[in-house]
Amino acid sequence: MARTTGSDGEKTEAAIRDAALDLIARLGFEAMSMRQLASQVGVQPAALYRYFPTKEVLLYALMREHMENLIGSWGEARPAEGSIEEKPAGRLAAFVENHIRFHLARRNSTHVSNLELRSLSEERLKRILDLRSEYEGELRGILTDGRRDGVFRIDDVSLTAMAIIQMITGVIVWFRPELRLSEDEVAANYHTMTMRLVGAAM
Amino acid sequence: MARTTGSDGEKTEAAIRDAALDLIARLGFEAMSMRQLASQVGVQPAALYRYFPTKEVLLYALMREHMENLIGSWGEARPAEGSIEEKPAGRLAAFVENHIRFHLARRNSTHVSNLELRSLSEERLKRILDLRSEYEGELRGILTDGRRDGVFRIDDVSLTAMAIIQMITGVIVWFRPELRLSEDEVAANYHTMTMRLVGAAM
Repeated sequence: MARTTGSDGEKTEAAIRDAALDLIARLGFEAMSMRQLASQVGVQPAALYRYFPTKEVLLYALMREHMENLIGSWGEARPAEGSIEEKPAGRLAAFVENHIRFHLARRNSTHVSNLELRSLSEERLKRILDLRSEYEGELRGILTDGRRDGVFRIDDVSLTAMAIIQMITGVIVWFRPELRLSEDEVAANYHTMTMRLVGAAM
Repeated sequence: MARTTGSDGEKTEAAIRDAALDLIARLGFEAMSMRQLASQVGVQPAALYRYFPTKEVLLYALMREHMENLIGSWGEARPAEGSIEEKPAGRLAAFVENHIRFHLARRNSTHVSNLELRSLSEERLKRILDLRSEYEGELRGILTDGRRDGVFRIDDVSLTAMAIIQMITGVIVWFRPELRLSEDEVAANYHTMTMRLVGAAM
């Protein structure tokens, strides 16, 4: 892999991130050693510490990148203002589809982000939770608008947002590309279930 | 705590299980040492190995107990045959309520069961997944019956079962007893959302 042998710092950092996501997803963060990671990337341990001075800094960088990419992907997927799709039902459809596709394309990163929060220091944990809250706020906004417009039936916006996020993130726990359903079919099914969950006519 | 100092073997084993769930939930399975666990329980490491010869045997015992208790709790909560509540809508309501209450009462055990599957050997993993499948089969049965009776609108029974399980298990990620909603209110809200998700009139 060209990425792992390039002398360019950015390539090395990307290779470290990729290898770390793979190792942490397989072994768990606590079980992975920096020595093991260096060997996987094909660099000296000292080189690793130039990019990530501690294991926790590395974990935080991985989780922050995951959340920033997720927020960025929604920024691009979000229907244009004033378009038909920008109405709450269209925005919810776009949100569910983008969320499922994003996570299915980044299984390792999703596992690490969901399973390893306990290894962050309090301050870094707070910053990751703030990013999550920012992202979930987008969904809460869609639900609030839909309820205001009378197109969604929702008793509790926060609870419903959490329920939807858990339901659609859960796809990566069981979805395997070789199974009977394609990614498109899964996304369509979850879209229908989400619309029913918010009491929209489907 | 009397449980941790009793000379009776069952009490010691229960104390080891409790302490292990607490430590694994906080530190992660790979990061916990048997020495640390022994010290937490207040016994010699050798005593631990009499009950659980390896760390993995201990993890498997914890996960198996969790799933067996969950299946057992549903066996008790399941509406009696021939009763009104035994119809699909009543059974689904009972399933959702039992699932949420069971998991909220066993946070550590739930975290361990959800986060540490990767540390099981292939054979033990298969046995845990078989228990999960048995439990999820109960939900699939309810959904199938409800669709047959025309009271649920469901496109894909397996997918819907996974979506519901992920949604209602997710409660423990964010629910804290000190928050604005009681356990009863949360269970009621999730019941409503589940009924909407399966297209039942609510």
